[in-house]
Amino acid sequence: MKPPKIGSKIWAIAEGYIPAYSHGPQPEMLSHETASILNTGDDIAEIDLMIYFRDREPAGPFKIIVGARRTLHLRFNDLKDPEVIPIGTDYSSVFISSQPVVIQHTRLDSRQEANALLSTIAYSAPLGL
Amino acid sequence: MKPPKIGSKIWAIAEGYIPAYSHGPQPEMLSHETASILNTGDDIAEIDLMIYFRDREPAGPFKIIVGARRTLHLRFNDLKDPEVIPIGTDYSSVFISSQPVVIQHTRLDSRQEANALLSTIAYSAPLGL
Amino acid sequence: MKPPKIGSKIWAIAEGYIPAYSHGPQPEMLSHETASILNTGDDIAEIDLMIYFRDREPAGPFKIIVGARRTLHLRFNDLKDPEVIPIGTDYSSVFISSQPVVIQHTRLDSRQEANALLSTIAYSAPLGL
Amino acid sequence: MKPPKIGSKIWAIAEGYIPAYSHGPQPEMLSHETASILNTGDDIAEIDLMIYFRDREPAGPFKIIVGARRTLHLRFNDLKDPEVIPIGTDYSSVFISSQPVVIQHTRLDSRQEANALLSTIAYSAPLGL
Repeated sequence: MKPPKIGSKIWAIAEGYIPAYSHGPQPEMLSHETASILNTGDDIAEIDLMIYFRDREPAGPFKIIVGARRTLHLRFNDLKDPEVIPIGTDYSSVFISSQPVVIQHTRLDSRQEANALLSTIAYSAPLGL
Repeated sequence: MKPPKIGSKIWAIAEGYIPAYSHGPQPEMLSHETASILNTGDDIAEIDLMIYFRDREPAGPFKIIVGARRTLHLRFNDLKDPEVIPIGTDYSSVFISSQPVVIQHTRLDSRQEANALLSTIAYSAPLGL
Repeated sequence: MKPPKIGSKIWAIAEGYIPAYSHGPQPEMLSHETASILNTGDDIAEIDLMIYFRDREPAGPFKIIVGARRTLHLRFNDLKDPEVIPIGTDYSSVFISSQPVVIQHTRLDSRQEANALLSTIAYSAPLGL
Repeated sequence: MKPPKIGSKIWAIAEGYIPAYSHGPQPEMLSHETASILNTGDDIAEIDLMIYFRDREPAGPFKIIVGARRTLHLRFNDLKDPEVIPIGTDYSSVFISSQPVVIQHTRLDSRQEANALLSTIAYSAPLGL
């Protein structure tokens, strides 16, 4: 069985926030925010990521690569170029990919004694946009 | 790279509930409910927000503005005009925007000793509605 | 501003599970599972709810009514007719509505000392199905 | 009332991660990751599941069967053939079904003293893909 190329080339995550502190062993219990990106196709996906803020112009593009038939669980905490995402700050993100991908948003918040989790499929722009 | 206008002009969030009490430092650990609204376009988005209840007519419209290329993480707790959303009460929300936006729903519930989180992409009405 | 009828007439929630015990004051911290149903239209929505199980034929239809311009946060725990949903048991649900509605799925799990939450927009069948 | 066949034949979950340890009574509080699969139709759904990783070729197909008018809450922890999913490891999943189904993704993470939950509807590929 060979899965087809699945997904969309444009995705958006309206909620973004990296909690400013953590509780528990790191790196796994470090408060973090992730975009999980699945590329089922046979071509490398080259992705431009833009970050939107409340009170300034967008940051980016951040250049992301996801190999053929690979998944990348990208931690926003790890982004460094062209800049770092500030912690404790509201943001949103948009992904423009050269190949169809599937993107899901997850946050682990360990600011209090037991961690909390959230996740949602990201918003995929309809084809033809 | 310039992202296109992404999203829909009509969004709905069926689940709504502001927990009535909190645990931990405020404002960040205050129990709250948020609609994160991303406007990737070059025009200001003017949004009419209506709130639906179990046993009364809808409230609103609340007038929301999201700047061009900006995100707004709107806390329902902060709404005041034309009225305040009661805490501990079931509600739903509908957003009608002048421009395409992307909306995601998040709740932080800190009623017990460790906070809980939920999030989901909101429901976007198909184009042509 | 008058929102149009928003939503779909057919919805499904694949995940269903009512935790078997709870921790904290009731009814608000009782472990429960909810389908939040928003009816923005001017007509009453009459909904047939079917519950699917792992190892038996489906239960239902359960008859649900959501008034015009109202929301109903339906707790699966409260269903009684034609039968009660067993706790600690895997199930799924399907909603067939006479009017377009929007449905979101939420669970509060208070089995341990701090509650956990999950939520997601339900699956809406494409028009024309 | 007889619900129609609801859903899609191709689904993807970009986020996948089985927490490596647990806290509380098992099996219900064992950290686990689930794909809830609903088959409302009158035919058995035969599903090929592929698992994608960060740094190796995909695993599978895993063969999954969901009976007519049944739901299956599949724990990724339980997969054994053709291989076991490693714990504490990033992955993604793709489901190719012989019949329309609806799939939702859920994780229970009990690594700390109170469990955390996440859930989202999976990504369904548009018809015609």
